Amino acid sequence: MSLRRVSVIGSGNWGSTIAKIVGNNIKKFPEYVPEVRMWVFEELVNGRKLTEIINTSHENVKYLPNVKLPENVVADPDVKSVARDADVLIIVMPHQFLNRTLAEMKPVVKPTSYAISLMKGLALSDDHGIKLLTDCIRDVLSIPCAVLMGANLATEVSQENYCEATIGIDNPKMGSELKKLFQTDYFRIVVIKDEVATELCGALKNIVAVAAGVIEGLGYGDNTKAAVIRLGFMEMKSFIYQFFADRHPQEGTFLESCGVADLITTCYGGRNKQMGIALATTNEPLAQLEKERLHGQSAQGPLTAAEVYAMLERKGLLEKYPIFTAVHKLCTRQFDPKNFICCLANHPEHR
Amino acid sequence: MSLRRVSVIGSGNWGSTIAKIVGNNIKKFPEYVPEVRMWVFEELVNGRKLTEIINTSHENVKYLPNVKLPENVVADPDVKSVARDADVLIIVMPHQFLNRTLAEMKPVVKPTSYAISLMKGLALSDDHGIKLLTDCIRDVLSIPCAVLMGANLATEVSQENYCEATIGIDNPKMGSELKKLFQTDYFRIVVIKDEVATELCGALKNIVAVAAGVIEGLGYGDNTKAAVIRLGFMEMKSFIYQFFADRHPQEGTFLESCGVADLITTCYGGRNKQMGIALATTNEPLAQLEKERLHGQSAQGPLTAAEVYAMLERKGLLEKYPIFTAVHKLCTRQFDPKNFICCLANHPEHR
Repeated sequence: MSLRRVSVIGSGNWGSTIAKIVGNNIKKFPEYVPEVRMWVFEELVNGRKLTEIINTSHENVKYLPNVKLPENVVADPDVKSVARDADVLIIVMPHQFLNRTLAEMKPVVKPTSYAISLMKGLALSDDHGIKLLTDCIRDVLSIPCAVLMGANLATEVSQENYCEATIGIDNPKMGSELKKLFQTDYFRIVVIKDEVATELCGALKNIVAVAAGVIEGLGYGDNTKAAVIRLGFMEMKSFIYQFFADRHPQEGTFLESCGVADLITTCYGGRNKQMGIALATTNEPLAQLEKERLHGQSAQGPLTAAEVYAMLERKGLLEKYPIFTAVHKLCTRQFDPKNFICCLANHPEHR
Repeated sequence: MSLRRVSVIGSGNWGSTIAKIVGNNIKKFPEYVPEVRMWVFEELVNGRKLTEIINTSHENVKYLPNVKLPENVVADPDVKSVARDADVLIIVMPHQFLNRTLAEMKPVVKPTSYAISLMKGLALSDDHGIKLLTDCIRDVLSIPCAVLMGANLATEVSQENYCEATIGIDNPKMGSELKKLFQTDYFRIVVIKDEVATELCGALKNIVAVAAGVIEGLGYGDNTKAAVIRLGFMEMKSFIYQFFADRHPQEGTFLESCGVADLITTCYGGRNKQMGIALATTNEPLAQLEKERLHGQSAQGPLTAAEVYAMLERKGLLEKYPIFTAVHKLCTRQFDPKNFICCLANHPEHR
């Protein structure tokens, strides 16, 4: 039997962290090709190619500095050569480039392979609804696609601080292979069947984090923040049951790392919370705030809120989701942050 | 029909805050005696009786300074005179004095009255198991007893910051009366039938908060803390189903304010988290730490952990609850905090 090959599509801080974990794990299993190819979008760093730096110094100096990658992780600027022959494709890239990259990979992807997405976000569907990123992968590549989500700030994982993650996958055989590839003493994996809620929790929690930041920016304390996190959690759950009931979301998923734990972490740290604070304490437009405070990077929460808002508005459901609705209106400056608290007092959870 | 009377047994910061809310609400309803009697354990403050200060300046200068109490809240040092004729007894006092106080109240309590407990803790039963504080009240006074729990730091509630609370009560008529008495624009009440899980969440979350503090004290980041909060949450849930299954705990309760929200608030602030940090960063005994850092007040988490540990040990269930177990051993200095992370990697949730 030929050896199985695992490839990583993407090399940001999360992609590089995962390549480190999988690269180290794979050495222990003789049934795998020991080399893990990692697709790197080529760029020059101090005049040298990033792939070349990674392959000689074994460090992604641009996106994950000061973390040693195992030598069997090989950077490659050609996504086709990374995807070709791979049996497991780990996809972890800025999702605005996803469709373009999938189109490039499509002709070379093995029909017997499968993918796992580590991306936290949503895409727009042709009918202006939302679409899961894993569905984009499934549709374009015609292969199964799992998802990994959890309370996993990349820098902390790369420093081997204890944490948990959730893998959602319907196929138990693939699930146990993925657990073998990803789990370490410090990175603990729970495999569940609920792909859809696992992925949606990872995307929707960023909206709630913006709301948590707004509350902090307005000067409210821990009680109010806990209330907003809880009510936001209820909106996440309700949204998933509202629009994805036919894909059988499970109650238990909300108590996995991809649910409650990731929500907590994101509401207490990270870019989306920071944007919420900025929205509450300034009058500047979001784009300006991202430029100043995130050095031009964008936060996922406002994007996801816009996609969700469009979907809720078309279905006439805005009133059922006061936090999701308020976050989008705040991000587009259609709403005074001081009115945010009023949205809560009559929340559907209190009727 | 004679007017209904509401009394508050206890006058710490939470008791005084609740007396303020109920005192203000009750004025709007003609079916109630407008006066709310509040039992105050008499003490001298700057040479004056605390009851006298409260009844003239309408401020509990000792336990809730700078918050105006409504004039219809009347402090009374005699618990019998406060409990007599009351139709609704709001019990909110340090629970080590509960049994003594209940014994005093017993001869005068109206047989048609009912109580609501706002206390977060557990008692020991005669057979060395744990006993709910509401069961102590039910047993001694022979009246029904509801419970109010939630993410409710008293000082924030007293400043009228938006928050939520959960009332657990089996009787819908009493539930709607309690909601009327407690709810305000900023203090939002959800009434549920699950008295038992509501109360247990409020008690057990303090153990998890100690663990969260230990993680912070050891220098771990947000991922690890989220993992400990989530695993602790799972232990709370499992404990409640293990020992109180015959009293029908409900899944939904864990997502109410008394569950996930209170847990989050407590793990990010408060005394128990502080004790956890101190346990991880010093070698001093707990009593010494409480003396130095809590000015002699005690934290509920270590007490609750000891009670829970005794129960788990007798039933041979320590291994199913590695966080509860480790917290007790840390509090009693039987265990090096550095080994705490090892308890997590093989948590039953990961098997």
